[in-house]
Amino acid sequence: MGESILVINSGSSSLKFQLISVQEEKSIASGLIDRIGEKVSTFALKYDGQKTTTSHEVPNHTTAFAIVLEGLTGGSKPIVISINEIKALGHRVVHGGDLYASAVIIDEDVINAIDELSSLAPLHNPANLISIKCGMDVFPNAIHVAVFDTAFHQTIPEVAHRYALPEVYYTDYKIRVYGFHGTSHKYVVSQLKNLLYGKLPGKVITLHLGNGCSMSAIKDGICIDTSLGFTPADGLIMGTRAGDLDPGLVLYLVDKLGLSTKEVNDLINKKSGMLGLTGKADLRDIIEEAANGDAMANLALTMNAYRIKKYIGAYAAAMNGLDALVFTAGIGENSPKMRSLICNDLSFFGVELDEGKNNAVIGMADTIHSSKSKVQIWVVPTQEEVEIAREAKKFL
Amino acid sequence: MGESILVINSGSSSLKFQLISVQEEKSIASGLIDRIGEKVSTFALKYDGQKTTTSHEVPNHTTAFAIVLEGLTGGSKPIVISINEIKALGHRVVHGGDLYASAVIIDEDVINAIDELSSLAPLHNPANLISIKCGMDVFPNAIHVAVFDTAFHQTIPEVAHRYALPEVYYTDYKIRVYGFHGTSHKYVVSQLKNLLYGKLPGKVITLHLGNGCSMSAIKDGICIDTSLGFTPADGLIMGTRAGDLDPGLVLYLVDKLGLSTKEVNDLINKKSGMLGLTGKADLRDIIEEAANGDAMANLALTMNAYRIKKYIGAYAAAMNGLDALVFTAGIGENSPKMRSLICNDLSFFGVELDEGKNNAVIGMADTIHSSKSKVQIWVVPTQEEVEIAREAKKFL
Repeated sequence: MGESILVINSGSSSLKFQLISVQEEKSIASGLIDRIGEKVSTFALKYDGQKTTTSHEVPNHTTAFAIVLEGLTGGSKPIVISINEIKALGHRVVHGGDLYASAVIIDEDVINAIDELSSLAPLHNPANLISIKCGMDVFPNAIHVAVFDTAFHQTIPEVAHRYALPEVYYTDYKIRVYGFHGTSHKYVVSQLKNLLYGKLPGKVITLHLGNGCSMSAIKDGICIDTSLGFTPADGLIMGTRAGDLDPGLVLYLVDKLGLSTKEVNDLINKKSGMLGLTGKADLRDIIEEAANGDAMANLALTMNAYRIKKYIGAYAAAMNGLDALVFTAGIGENSPKMRSLICNDLSFFGVELDEGKNNAVIGMADTIHSSKSKVQIWVVPTQEEVEIAREAKKFL
Repeated sequence: MGESILVINSGSSSLKFQLISVQEEKSIASGLIDRIGEKVSTFALKYDGQKTTTSHEVPNHTTAFAIVLEGLTGGSKPIVISINEIKALGHRVVHGGDLYASAVIIDEDVINAIDELSSLAPLHNPANLISIKCGMDVFPNAIHVAVFDTAFHQTIPEVAHRYALPEVYYTDYKIRVYGFHGTSHKYVVSQLKNLLYGKLPGKVITLHLGNGCSMSAIKDGICIDTSLGFTPADGLIMGTRAGDLDPGLVLYLVDKLGLSTKEVNDLINKKSGMLGLTGKADLRDIIEEAANGDAMANLALTMNAYRIKKYIGAYAAAMNGLDALVFTAGIGENSPKMRSLICNDLSFFGVELDEGKNNAVIGMADTIHSSKSKVQIWVVPTQEEVEIAREAKKFL
């Protein structure tokens, strides 16, 4: 099947992968090993329309990589003839701080930098780093590339990426807007450009609406603002995250209501957002409840859309214009209801949805605006793994 | 001089007052007693273009009210012939919670309510309450009216006043957007209506830019959103307040940088904003430094304006349109530079400033938009005391 790139997305106890062909940039196989470090792990492999699941003892990520390699190259009809066909591994790394504005070949310096940036992403960077080291052990001849979730947002200018705190917090403590989901925002922008035969509109807003949610303002192809900030807690209302909160309120929860900072952290990241408002985390359930007349479900959907509308307005102001909205990720690709709530009553901005098209476009790339709309409205499914493979491919 | 209303704005150690004529709704005299409770207090009185300053021993607010009364009625040419000419006292109260959507005559229930709301405004409501009680002692025959800073924002609908936190924080702990500067926002809206011969535009954004800053979206005369939230720490970049901050960042300051919540509170309320960015609290100094080429001063001004632009866009989205911007308060009334930074590059919204008019309109009511502008841009000096007197007048 020729040359391929293995894209890796690791957590502390999981390894997700996707094998992408270098030539066609298409997914060949994908899979997941979970519960690494526990007694029994499951290895799920999808290939050629079939899913096989096997159980293994996987004490660490090195063993996980070895199992993936065996899964790809073993058996009577191997997916990959030889390990040497896998030319590169593209490792997703959550935080590149202000050090990395693009993907980079992993060497000793990069490993040290990812380690140092762990203070900014304590849940993710250490796990990413362990996975990188194990991957390098199992695939010693491949090129290893780190692709950072923050890199695409490094073009955001100081006026938008700084907080109004004393300078020392910026210079010494590196407190600023980093943004996340950068690989997804970048992918849908490049995909939109392809769909428009190379002509990207000048003022684009990308809406990555999944379990985590963020929006970016893209001016002339460059990200100039984004809704996730220093941490992934800011901005839009998400599945379990509150998004925008008065900073004084956070202190009030500790000082007056007696919560510990850990409890506040859990509250605003894991127990708030759509879950906190409705008791349900899955948007489809909430939409169904709202349709059945549940007032709280209805309010939660309206609040969610209202927040997004305000960010659309804010970014239109930041760019002094608006040419295109691009919906992506689980909700953005698959929820006509949310897209409708967001796009309605934005005629002042030239946004006019075609409800028929909107209802028809699910999980595929197409426009959903009416012929009168001055703003193009697109659905573009995200493929972060393909984007990571593209980044890695540049180094082949 | 006929009937008058005494407007009171008290802090824990100060009493500011203004005497307003009932008929013309004009300021007759004004003054301040400071350092209440210290050894020597100063009583400054402005009347008829003259300012007199005297020293007194003022152990408490009751004495302060007695001195004000003596100042107004005493001497050979008294400002007020008799205490009975002062028909009402309008007391500014910072927090009315979700209990008061308009001004109210103060009785035992109101006093208890203001007391209970102290948990939401621990620095202000207790001081306001002491002052009210003392004022009622010294002016027993006048009507006493509480005018709440939050009242005008009580029309903000649930979709905009709720945070995406679990319901118990809303129902039991009353955590929601309250907003502040309501009296100022209300005054300039009613003033704009007067200036336009009774025809208020449907979609107005008011910009109260002083040492504290807030913006409100006013649809059909009703406030539907505002930038200050549960506390006065949110939203715009202010003199010493940071405004919008990632809530995760607030926790990071405590958990990773080791600040106490009190230190974070001081940091974001007293040491951030324009002061934190530039080391200067006075905007005029910062503008001068920026003009002299200081990069940090320039960045701070640009950040400040950028944040405001984004709120303009957000509120234009919330209202699906924009008819008028109204600048008020110290900076809004007196800084053509800030108004210019804010209004430039908003042509997409139909905002076109006339720089000549903008430079000419300082501290007075007038328009500053060009003839091409689709959006009216107004400067309207705020007079919170007059608005408080108007509220009190309704009960005469």
